[in-house]
Amino acid sequence: MPAPDSIRVAVVGATGYVGAELVGYLAGHPGARLTAVTSEQSAGKLLADVHPFLQGACDLGLVPFEPKAVAGEADVAFTALPHGASAAGVAALLDAGVEVVDLSADFRLSDPEEYARWYGTHPVPALLNEAVYGLTEFARAALPGARLVANPGCYPTGALLGLLPLLDAGHIETHGIVVDSKSGVTGAGRTVAAEYLFAEISDSFRAYKVGNHRHAPEIDGNVRARTGGDHSLTFVPHLLPIKRGILSTIYTRLRPGVDLAAVEQTFRARYEQERFVRVCGTRLPELREVVGTNDCAIGWAVDGGSNTLVTVTVIDNLGKGAAGQAIQNFNVMQGLPESTGLERVALVP
Amino acid sequence: MPAPDSIRVAVVGATGYVGAELVGYLAGHPGARLTAVTSEQSAGKLLADVHPFLQGACDLGLVPFEPKAVAGEADVAFTALPHGASAAGVAALLDAGVEVVDLSADFRLSDPEEYARWYGTHPVPALLNEAVYGLTEFARAALPGARLVANPGCYPTGALLGLLPLLDAGHIETHGIVVDSKSGVTGAGRTVAAEYLFAEISDSFRAYKVGNHRHAPEIDGNVRARTGGDHSLTFVPHLLPIKRGILSTIYTRLRPGVDLAAVEQTFRARYEQERFVRVCGTRLPELREVVGTNDCAIGWAVDGGSNTLVTVTVIDNLGKGAAGQAIQNFNVMQGLPESTGLERVALVP
Amino acid sequence: MPAPDSIRVAVVGATGYVGAELVGYLAGHPGARLTAVTSEQSAGKLLADVHPFLQGACDLGLVPFEPKAVAGEADVAFTALPHGASAAGVAALLDAGVEVVDLSADFRLSDPEEYARWYGTHPVPALLNEAVYGLTEFARAALPGARLVANPGCYPTGALLGLLPLLDAGHIETHGIVVDSKSGVTGAGRTVAAEYLFAEISDSFRAYKVGNHRHAPEIDGNVRARTGGDHSLTFVPHLLPIKRGILSTIYTRLRPGVDLAAVEQTFRARYEQERFVRVCGTRLPELREVVGTNDCAIGWAVDGGSNTLVTVTVIDNLGKGAAGQAIQNFNVMQGLPESTGLERVALVP
Amino acid sequence: MPAPDSIRVAVVGATGYVGAELVGYLAGHPGARLTAVTSEQSAGKLLADVHPFLQGACDLGLVPFEPKAVAGEADVAFTALPHGASAAGVAALLDAGVEVVDLSADFRLSDPEEYARWYGTHPVPALLNEAVYGLTEFARAALPGARLVANPGCYPTGALLGLLPLLDAGHIETHGIVVDSKSGVTGAGRTVAAEYLFAEISDSFRAYKVGNHRHAPEIDGNVRARTGGDHSLTFVPHLLPIKRGILSTIYTRLRPGVDLAAVEQTFRARYEQERFVRVCGTRLPELREVVGTNDCAIGWAVDGGSNTLVTVTVIDNLGKGAAGQAIQNFNVMQGLPESTGLERVALVP
Repeated sequence: MPAPDSIRVAVVGATGYVGAELVGYLAGHPGARLTAVTSEQSAGKLLADVHPFLQGACDLGLVPFEPKAVAGEADVAFTALPHGASAAGVAALLDAGVEVVDLSADFRLSDPEEYARWYGTHPVPALLNEAVYGLTEFARAALPGARLVANPGCYPTGALLGLLPLLDAGHIETHGIVVDSKSGVTGAGRTVAAEYLFAEISDSFRAYKVGNHRHAPEIDGNVRARTGGDHSLTFVPHLLPIKRGILSTIYTRLRPGVDLAAVEQTFRARYEQERFVRVCGTRLPELREVVGTNDCAIGWAVDGGSNTLVTVTVIDNLGKGAAGQAIQNFNVMQGLPESTGLERVALVP
Repeated sequence: MPAPDSIRVAVVGATGYVGAELVGYLAGHPGARLTAVTSEQSAGKLLADVHPFLQGACDLGLVPFEPKAVAGEADVAFTALPHGASAAGVAALLDAGVEVVDLSADFRLSDPEEYARWYGTHPVPALLNEAVYGLTEFARAALPGARLVANPGCYPTGALLGLLPLLDAGHIETHGIVVDSKSGVTGAGRTVAAEYLFAEISDSFRAYKVGNHRHAPEIDGNVRARTGGDHSLTFVPHLLPIKRGILSTIYTRLRPGVDLAAVEQTFRARYEQERFVRVCGTRLPELREVVGTNDCAIGWAVDGGSNTLVTVTVIDNLGKGAAGQAIQNFNVMQGLPESTGLERVALVP
Repeated sequence: MPAPDSIRVAVVGATGYVGAELVGYLAGHPGARLTAVTSEQSAGKLLADVHPFLQGACDLGLVPFEPKAVAGEADVAFTALPHGASAAGVAALLDAGVEVVDLSADFRLSDPEEYARWYGTHPVPALLNEAVYGLTEFARAALPGARLVANPGCYPTGALLGLLPLLDAGHIETHGIVVDSKSGVTGAGRTVAAEYLFAEISDSFRAYKVGNHRHAPEIDGNVRARTGGDHSLTFVPHLLPIKRGILSTIYTRLRPGVDLAAVEQTFRARYEQERFVRVCGTRLPELREVVGTNDCAIGWAVDGGSNTLVTVTVIDNLGKGAAGQAIQNFNVMQGLPESTGLERVALVP
Repeated sequence: MPAPDSIRVAVVGATGYVGAELVGYLAGHPGARLTAVTSEQSAGKLLADVHPFLQGACDLGLVPFEPKAVAGEADVAFTALPHGASAAGVAALLDAGVEVVDLSADFRLSDPEEYARWYGTHPVPALLNEAVYGLTEFARAALPGARLVANPGCYPTGALLGLLPLLDAGHIETHGIVVDSKSGVTGAGRTVAAEYLFAEISDSFRAYKVGNHRHAPEIDGNVRARTGGDHSLTFVPHLLPIKRGILSTIYTRLRPGVDLAAVEQTFRARYEQERFVRVCGTRLPELREVVGTNDCAIGWAVDGGSNTLVTVTVIDNLGKGAAGQAIQNFNVMQGLPESTGLERVALVP
């Protein structure tokens, strides 16, 4: 049972896959008390009527999203609205004094022109610079005291956790980077479209949006911060016939003099204190090891003939790729132990 | 972190699916401290080397099963050994002063002759009467102080939770009962056989062991305790192309004068105080609502034309059907709050 | 290549799952020449643009359904339109001189009042009696010369092929029959609804529409023709997390004096000449044995304690349960060898 | 029914996945008559008892493999034995006058030293040069009259069909090639091992054997024939939780002056006459489009920022990746129309 003095939180957009996952995490979070859940389409119903698996975890009724009403009930809001629809609501929440962890893409790109290329004109560009990009392991210093956290995209989380230590250490050539990612279907949210029907996905597999996925500029921007733009990177997402999880296979060329030992030393040094990053070494992690958790597991191999480093990262797109990392960011923002409410074991088998 | 005065527990047979699930539950159990994990085949390795998803949850090394060694380290043992292989070890543990929750079939049948028909001669028949059959919701009075709990089989758990309230209320004809059950593949354990290969199971479905499944006498014996043998029941298990979960569709004929309202009243009265039984009424529960948890969900419908009551129960065969119920029984045995360590939300989607 | 004098056929509603399956069968049918494919939503596109897997099999463009236009191009039409939407179009095709195999439910029930209870008022009730109910193995005499065949529903096909020989032989009690059926998702057609999304179906399983599925009266009507109404039958459909296939587990009580040998003799005698019914005896067939084919496989077991006969049938709901049986009916109607275009091997593994 | 003068063929190793797929293809092949099927483990049984889905397709009994006995019954043998176990039997078949399409890896590498690195000393190295590497679209001239065809590996087939036209046209840099392949589980054959159990594969995904997969030298050797060794290529296989199909995502850098139009022109020119290669252009093909067939579908996209060409190929690993291509090679060897027995439509959905 949450203590009476725990932090009051709201989930805005609670019936989507990310929203429901947030509720599941918050139900077991001893430092947060869920006080409001919103939905436009299902307002008036209980959340547990829409999602029976949440019976016992949440007995709240769904209400339409009203920033001021949320402000009356919550100290912090997790916003899980569609891209483009989130920014204005987030601004209103901030104005009303509510801190926000935003799980849409609306505050992930710092450049309003880049944002406009992918999502249309940004309604509150002034907030783009204030938002802290919440890849927790690389954002920890900026989170305490932040009013607004832009929770990273699922693909960027998996890609950047594998790439950034190598870039920071100068181990890899910055040109010719390939990120080949494979995601479960929930990465597309609860979109009701023929292409996501069971009978269209099961037993199949495909690449999509090669060269024009919205997460590409988010990955690129974070790499650019290390290279000043002197890099080239190809990102190709694929759709796995499973529900959850992203495995990214990252191809880079090692710089002269960098060997397997140096790679190992760098990953271990960077992540050895991290509760949610598991360094596997040359044992390549499987997707299922992290499904249902906030963990990222990283392994690698060197292909000797081509001097190519193959780095593999796995996350749960709804965990470390969305709701889990949002809770992690919330914990750091609020000064709680970082793993509060996040101590889960993957559901294997 | 478990308190220093928490109960020391061992998992005997920790590398199978049930054993690993027990470890996962115990890692988050505030009243138990896992002190020993055994495996014959993998002795000498860390459990987390065999099951990487348990890294962080358990850093113990695997040792061969020695009852006396276990007695030196644990107050209670969960034994998850194959049927037939368990009984002698359980007896030795009891002799050494260790309380036992046994997850094999070795103590589920009270009649040694019936046992022999299915499993061969019982090595310690004297214990058959001492063992408490741990269908928790129907065994609660007998559990505190018990030395040995026979944890129910997965199929019997789902079938009996749906049938017993109806039998106890005298609502249904005791002849012509049909239990049509569908189970995920982990119900067969981690058996390495061609028939359980991915390429043999995926996209297929089948019935098996009609009229001669080992769980049939376990179901039958519990029904017999209500009918004195004046009943007939057909149990047919099927194999679903999924990993976890059992859905049982139970067909019974309503006795004259019994209507839908009476059924509802009976189920609600019987289970309204139960934390781990969710009464859904005429909304039929889906399997996924309970996967990853210790919950059983029950719904029903009456087929008017044939006056047939169709009752549907769903459980996770590794949760309420095995490890979850074992923890629940442990909690009751030890005087802990019954839901300790079992507060989980199903992994949906 | 079809000969110039082969029969010209049209598929009305060619972009749904049943329609596309028909096209796939017809592409390899040496006695039929596909001349027209219709779709309201995708008119103007090539069928192979909507379904790339049909490239090479069909190079026709999609046109809106116009009965007279179809009559100009085809001798026989396969109509695969939604229930309720089909009847009027079928009537117009017949008026224009086109023979029809209708795969909707519109002509499966002979009683207009029964039809109205499930689907609304029938637009052309006069045709209900003319339509031949095309469970081929039981309709063979009526098919040659028929203008209109009502192709059976998928659930009824699997249920009736298992039940009718037993009823005809008088082997089973006619009360207390239970048909527990489990179907792949394509049984629901290409319905774009949240409940059929991959992330909602995968890893789950559920019963649905207990006591009120539209196929219940179709099964019941065919049983009634044997019992005069002196029977009771409960039909419960379930949704499997696979694409194709229906397995029905049928529970009946054997009449006094009927034993396993009598059951075997009856099934073998009834089906030994049937190309598309495989009698497996006490080996229970798996679903995958028939996926991709027009076959039905039947096996059984007797549960001695309860004198219950458990009969298991498996079909591909898009094969024998829809498109395959439609082709089979077409062949018999047209005087072609019954297996023309239907010689397929199941896709295993 | 095959004509009396059709070619008599044997399948050596008929109970594995590849062997059974061969039987399925041959059952519908009008120019071949299957006269013998072998198995060491299941000798004495009918093939249809081991694989019930082949009832009706093949009524032969299984016999142990005896080259001379095969020579008495067959003109051509398809050998589907494990790597290493095949070579000696193939040599004996050739000595006895039987032509062979070998589906093992034993004759795919022309260099005995390279072979030894991966599989051990080759028992009949003299045959390595005689064997025709049967990537049909690139081997057509050498096939008629060949005694021995080495059927390509599944990964090499998908990789090379996408790479070779680009290499032959000089469109791509030959260094830094990345082949990221994802395969269904049947690619591992019917290996009974814990890692291939349903409960270990379902809902998961992983990379494996990075830098040391046995198909790497096979891919490399075919590229080397174009580059003289002046190239570098990284091949990473992954295991999909599906039964069939390989999708390869191939990353190459375009040479200066080469644009999308040149790529399209090259692929179309190279494959426009090919029955079994479907050029999709910038529509990226899905795996399911080819499952159950002998087709390869190819699409591509250019990632402008990095000037990287992303080519995607899909095949059925048991079709074009094994049994289908073996039949295709057989047809060309024997002077039959190349598509004989291979006219299939993918099983969608």
